[in-house]
Amino acid sequence: MYPKSFKKLIDYFASLPSIGPKMAERLVLYLFKQDKDFLENFGTTLKELKINLRYCQRCFNISEENLCEICQDSSRQLKRICVVEDPLDVIAIERTKKYQGIYHVLGGTIGLVRKSEQGKIKLSELEERITNEKIKEVILATNPTTEGDATALYILRTIRPLGVKVTRLARGLSTGGDIEYADEITLSSALTNRKEFT
Amino acid sequence: MYPKSFKKLIDYFASLPSIGPKMAERLVLYLFKQDKDFLENFGTTLKELKINLRYCQRCFNISEENLCEICQDSSRQLKRICVVEDPLDVIAIERTKKYQGIYHVLGGTIGLVRKSEQGKIKLSELEERITNEKIKEVILATNPTTEGDATALYILRTIRPLGVKVTRLARGLSTGGDIEYADEITLSSALTNRKEFT
Repeated sequence: MYPKSFKKLIDYFASLPSIGPKMAERLVLYLFKQDKDFLENFGTTLKELKINLRYCQRCFNISEENLCEICQDSSRQLKRICVVEDPLDVIAIERTKKYQGIYHVLGGTIGLVRKSEQGKIKLSELEERITNEKIKEVILATNPTTEGDATALYILRTIRPLGVKVTRLARGLSTGGDIEYADEITLSSALTNRKEFT
Repeated sequence: MYPKSFKKLIDYFASLPSIGPKMAERLVLYLFKQDKDFLENFGTTLKELKINLRYCQRCFNISEENLCEICQDSSRQLKRICVVEDPLDVIAIERTKKYQGIYHVLGGTIGLVRKSEQGKIKLSELEERITNEKIKEVILATNPTTEGDATALYILRTIRPLGVKVTRLARGLSTGGDIEYADEITLSSALTNRKEFT
């Protein structure tokens, strides 16, 4: 029904996460209405995405050089590592401007289903860094989900013998949230972790 | 915060309809994890989208040749034109397999706000076709929205002097829908357009 090149691009878009076939159709129709220069530049940027980028050799964040911007920044505290699942988490934490340490990007969580996936996250690299870089504190900042919690627990057990201080991000109510609509687990955490009000 | 080429691609995705900045971030991170061949092919398909495609000279549907597949199909009824807003509507109507006539793609609706937009839809081309192709029936299949209805009315007034039969797609309940949850306007249409049950 569609012309071939139209169909092919729809398939590419539909293969992306959270884009369904209907949305892919609409996106491609929108793109078809744009001028040639836009498509040309968009296409080139897409093709070159991996050419200029690589993973940081130390923390596995996305980087334009062998070491990422954060690892190159001499003003950071080098004895504190924040362990996150993927590079977008680094961006989110950096936006808070509250963290001066460095990062370690796992590249995912341990697979709860497939055991073989466990080898894929950068855990042995984390162990090496803790020893070689004489790290004092590891902040586990995996997502507050079943997979993220399991990964945090798995990492804790793996690195505990190294004698490093291990912390986990606090759980509680979201700012701007509504107690009435908070789920039970979040509300329990908020109660358990309540702080003295001074 | 992001490397430049990463940021640039995020901006391209975020410029597309119904993709917000957060979703664009996630899409680009997903793409970054794919292999180079995938990006290469995706990028090439995007760049070439308009190279092989054009608008059908007769009905303004998307086409690989001067006339689209439907206009080239000699088995279609050539005296009946279905007027739609954009090429995705052609696809939707073709999927029903209930229509044997040909199409006319307007390329949008008349702007309810900006008067100048009215010149952009292919209305004068429709008038020419009705006369030149000796069309017997024009089916107005613009969307059942305020803009679509206004466009249908505007077209009706423009082509009525040509003496052609003009019809509009039926309004009523959606199949699989629930009367309890139907909006008042749809339910009113369904009542007004009720058919004898035989």
